[in-house]
Amino acid sequence: MKYIEFDQSREMDIILLGRVTIDFNPLDYYKSLVESETFRKYVGGSPANIAVGMARLGKKCGFLGKVSDDQFGRFVVEYFEKEGIDTSRISKCEHGEKLGLTFTEILSPTESSILMYRNQAADLQLSVADIDEEYIKNSKALLISGTALAMSPSREATLKALQFAKKNNTKVIFDIDYREYNWASRDDMAIYYSIVAHQSDIIIGSREEFDITEALLDPGRDDHTTAKYWCDQGSRIVVIKHGKEGSTAYTYDGNDYSIKPFPVKALKGFGGGDGYASSFLYGLLEGYEIIECLEMGSAQAAMLIASHGCSADMPSAEAVKEFIRESKEKYGDMVARA
Amino acid sequence: MKYIEFDQSREMDIILLGRVTIDFNPLDYYKSLVESETFRKYVGGSPANIAVGMARLGKKCGFLGKVSDDQFGRFVVEYFEKEGIDTSRISKCEHGEKLGLTFTEILSPTESSILMYRNQAADLQLSVADIDEEYIKNSKALLISGTALAMSPSREATLKALQFAKKNNTKVIFDIDYREYNWASRDDMAIYYSIVAHQSDIIIGSREEFDITEALLDPGRDDHTTAKYWCDQGSRIVVIKHGKEGSTAYTYDGNDYSIKPFPVKALKGFGGGDGYASSFLYGLLEGYEIIECLEMGSAQAAMLIASHGCSADMPSAEAVKEFIRESKEKYGDMVARA
Amino acid sequence: MKYIEFDQSREMDIILLGRVTIDFNPLDYYKSLVESETFRKYVGGSPANIAVGMARLGKKCGFLGKVSDDQFGRFVVEYFEKEGIDTSRISKCEHGEKLGLTFTEILSPTESSILMYRNQAADLQLSVADIDEEYIKNSKALLISGTALAMSPSREATLKALQFAKKNNTKVIFDIDYREYNWASRDDMAIYYSIVAHQSDIIIGSREEFDITEALLDPGRDDHTTAKYWCDQGSRIVVIKHGKEGSTAYTYDGNDYSIKPFPVKALKGFGGGDGYASSFLYGLLEGYEIIECLEMGSAQAAMLIASHGCSADMPSAEAVKEFIRESKEKYGDMVARA
Amino acid sequence: MKYIEFDQSREMDIILLGRVTIDFNPLDYYKSLVESETFRKYVGGSPANIAVGMARLGKKCGFLGKVSDDQFGRFVVEYFEKEGIDTSRISKCEHGEKLGLTFTEILSPTESSILMYRNQAADLQLSVADIDEEYIKNSKALLISGTALAMSPSREATLKALQFAKKNNTKVIFDIDYREYNWASRDDMAIYYSIVAHQSDIIIGSREEFDITEALLDPGRDDHTTAKYWCDQGSRIVVIKHGKEGSTAYTYDGNDYSIKPFPVKALKGFGGGDGYASSFLYGLLEGYEIIECLEMGSAQAAMLIASHGCSADMPSAEAVKEFIRESKEKYGDMVARA
Repeated sequence: MKYIEFDQSREMDIILLGRVTIDFNPLDYYKSLVESETFRKYVGGSPANIAVGMARLGKKCGFLGKVSDDQFGRFVVEYFEKEGIDTSRISKCEHGEKLGLTFTEILSPTESSILMYRNQAADLQLSVADIDEEYIKNSKALLISGTALAMSPSREATLKALQFAKKNNTKVIFDIDYREYNWASRDDMAIYYSIVAHQSDIIIGSREEFDITEALLDPGRDDHTTAKYWCDQGSRIVVIKHGKEGSTAYTYDGNDYSIKPFPVKALKGFGGGDGYASSFLYGLLEGYEIIECLEMGSAQAAMLIASHGCSADMPSAEAVKEFIRESKEKYGDMVARA
Repeated sequence: MKYIEFDQSREMDIILLGRVTIDFNPLDYYKSLVESETFRKYVGGSPANIAVGMARLGKKCGFLGKVSDDQFGRFVVEYFEKEGIDTSRISKCEHGEKLGLTFTEILSPTESSILMYRNQAADLQLSVADIDEEYIKNSKALLISGTALAMSPSREATLKALQFAKKNNTKVIFDIDYREYNWASRDDMAIYYSIVAHQSDIIIGSREEFDITEALLDPGRDDHTTAKYWCDQGSRIVVIKHGKEGSTAYTYDGNDYSIKPFPVKALKGFGGGDGYASSFLYGLLEGYEIIECLEMGSAQAAMLIASHGCSADMPSAEAVKEFIRESKEKYGDMVARA
Repeated sequence: MKYIEFDQSREMDIILLGRVTIDFNPLDYYKSLVESETFRKYVGGSPANIAVGMARLGKKCGFLGKVSDDQFGRFVVEYFEKEGIDTSRISKCEHGEKLGLTFTEILSPTESSILMYRNQAADLQLSVADIDEEYIKNSKALLISGTALAMSPSREATLKALQFAKKNNTKVIFDIDYREYNWASRDDMAIYYSIVAHQSDIIIGSREEFDITEALLDPGRDDHTTAKYWCDQGSRIVVIKHGKEGSTAYTYDGNDYSIKPFPVKALKGFGGGDGYASSFLYGLLEGYEIIECLEMGSAQAAMLIASHGCSADMPSAEAVKEFIRESKEKYGDMVARA
Repeated sequence: MKYIEFDQSREMDIILLGRVTIDFNPLDYYKSLVESETFRKYVGGSPANIAVGMARLGKKCGFLGKVSDDQFGRFVVEYFEKEGIDTSRISKCEHGEKLGLTFTEILSPTESSILMYRNQAADLQLSVADIDEEYIKNSKALLISGTALAMSPSREATLKALQFAKKNNTKVIFDIDYREYNWASRDDMAIYYSIVAHQSDIIIGSREEFDITEALLDPGRDDHTTAKYWCDQGSRIVVIKHGKEGSTAYTYDGNDYSIKPFPVKALKGFGGGDGYASSFLYGLLEGYEIIECLEMGSAQAAMLIASHGCSADMPSAEAVKEFIRESKEKYGDMVARA
């Protein structure tokens, strides 16, 4: 059963809105960031990673965001163009704002932390003047990353894009993508996350992220109550993630579908979520059954945590399917099929 | 017919949220503000005026706002207390922010302008930490003034209060109260006005104010389309004002009720709207027929533009009714009764 | 003996740099500002008052400052023009900054306080782009008010004007004019006051103001040590004021000259200092003996505290001299002549 | 002849005040920063480099500055401690400010550019509360880097340190170290550079840097006029650098001493200045003849541009002397001895 219908007549598959940064991952990892001496630079930021991920899976992606007016900004745009992502709506900052930076500390395959440079970050300078109704109208879907809501003027740019998406039947996917940085308070998170969630067709988040979203509405919900509430508000699919326990997609008809993580030798503890979203959304756009979407998402998540980069290591659809096939041979099925 | 039901078991009739300022009205008026030399100080700001207005009409009002930590802040609190308004949720600014000031220029009975001091205004410092669910839960209604949405942190405090009001069935009255000052862009107005309007039980605004609210949704609507849209979103009553042409209340059942302004010898061109809101909401809380609410609102509006102050000249319910009686004798009925 | 020589060939007598505000003095005074209801508006701010004071005494004054782009800004410029002050270097703020306001609380003839509106004050927006070497070169003297140093960009504009004055032999008069508002710390005051004091020909301040100026250099000096230090740095005259005890002018040759306050029935406790500076500097520019300058300064100070306004009540030179004559008849000589 | 006498009884040789950052130099250089993929991290920032430089030469150095409260801040402190630099006056930022970053673009041995992250940089958060008279009193010298003057609160912290140095006869070395970033205007540079230069015992800068410093005083000076002016104001030594043309030290007695750059195979175009300052100041502290100081400075400059890092590649005194000996054998004397 198809839980969501995209307008197939539209040229663009999906617009990714929000954060694009530079990731610096240490080459001499499994030590503290104090000690790591050499770093490799990658395009990063959750929606940017998903843009690359979905482009490599074969989808037509557009990025709606703001970059610095310097070599790093040019690096992002050139990288996106090489990947076939539409960059016509990426504009440059005009007051010296810089791309956000993420220095990752990889202490072990499972312990990571990040050191973020987000003061006057370029992505948060996205403004209402950058949002153009025609562009949104011509896309099947719009993915909103929660970090775009952290500060003005990006916050209002995002809410404007949301209004245009609703008005034009562009499906709204809300990836909560909680990052504490830049937010004034947890109440602010609850306010803006819930404003967007109330109008989203698909919501993706961890249990903690839904807790933050619901903090002023009704704190302490379990997954079923959460899923039912948002479906009652109009969502079609609510995906709740539980890390190593796997994840579940709840659908508006009251069903739910669960998937376990694929076993893999992890190199680092981050990047999986962006791989997950890329394949899951790819599957939905392709019209796959939801359980297949989950399987691909889970597989791509596993592939990503086994690699050094995020954007740079996004696989093709064939590679994801091959990985699933091989994993099943080795470990059996991950899907809890009813 | 009653278009809105308030929970009569609650102690507080209405909470007014937002702007409280000091008005300085010239005593030597009908000249430019450059030339006016002496001024009289009043408590001002639309929701503050309505608080005084409704308190004098006999309603139990609470004010939710922020004042400066100086003599002017004390003046506001002492004045409110003298009027019987609950001031338990008025807090003081902690970083030297000052009450907004409004110097009015009264050029003629119909031409006015204002010179506003709104840089780091105290009222806009209202923050999420000031918003308390119990207080909102114990009130029949919450009036949100649009100026409270102009900037953070007041914007988020207002959205938090809105969430608590919706959750607890406290009726939400949205007085758009458009003031250009402090807003970053017209898109921002459209975004936040419409977020609040979508969740309001009663919306009050001029044609221009609804145009701003609808600018991203569907610009250029006529009054009937506007009223139908917001009633479809959940509003019970939509009041659209046309200045000297009078005003109309549109109800969710598709009816509309119109009123003309009462003839009066005006002293100044402002203050009428706050008088209108005071009596209109008073009538609804009293359970009057909607046409009577409009008649009282229109009458009190007329009384206000004939006086020098705003808050200081708010009348009692008896005085409003007496004014209506006298006016009808002189000029006939203002109501376009079906 | 003449302690300071002005270049008599220059057209302008003195440029006043810095603060211009609006004063609102209560008409119903001798009560708290919470209770005062009516106010009279005046041009205010120490250097603005001195500009009016010296213009009325017959000197050619220019004002170097920034005003708001509104009716109050126009009021200041029109008022100055009426007084014959050159306003060619007064520019308008471009980002909505407002003139500072001072609401005075007159509790008794000797107890006063003030409520200042100084957030984003227009005068503090004076910037380096507003400072023009030719203008300073054509004036005999430049008066710098210490409040102009409280924040950037006014701070740098003032330091630029100081460099041009030193370079062009325009005599520098530093009126410390300590106001706590807008300063980040007492160390900042000590730093910038002392930078300017080190380059001033005349320094005027109270004992407390010199203590602040010397806080990092050598705290706890007595008046003689203070005067000797600054004269060693290049000052010609150092005036130290002790309120009701009178004031003393210390000269670079090691002499000192003292004056007592003139007895007067005071209406308010402020404004005297600006009257003092006006006549004292007038006397120096006229080439009077220093003791005569002090006598006129002290007389004008007395006249000012007996009146309701500051700028509006500045006297002519004849009136000051007449006041001295009458006072001497009644009370005898104020001067401690050696 | 000794041009400057340090108080040899003091424990600390020199305090370095100001900028400490992280440098990321590309490992795959001689290409654009858009293309460079891997980077090596170093402690950077001119005064930090000089601190490491002088510590390796054997001097007792203290660093007066502010670092981020994160892994990079810890990296700096640990690195300094390993080098024997006193870190007791390095404090941590409290509001999330981050260490400045410098990504270097090495296009060729002579063409470089930098991409700086300086928004809310930690070093510029140094405040007056961090400046302690005892610390400065116990050091022979204080080096002020011009970038510390770019913004408040670091600007005032620097001016406070300057007052304490002058008061306690700690010799002041002003390294103009012009970086456009963070300055509001060129007038601001002229104002603050000249305030510090007027009170410095030694000034080091390029011709361009002296031009900026003198822009309001007397633009367009030649080197001799510049040197004479600052020596008249109290400087003992004025060093003016002309890149490949070499540099000259002008002394207060009217003499001047010139040096040419040592021939070297450069890897990159930056870092030489910090090597120069390290050895030049080392020589002065050791009581060497000024021409020897220049020779060592020039030699160490050459050694630095031949290496990948700055701080990490600072040599010992023996290595500098060995380099001079070898260079002379190959290329002859660099010194223009009278």
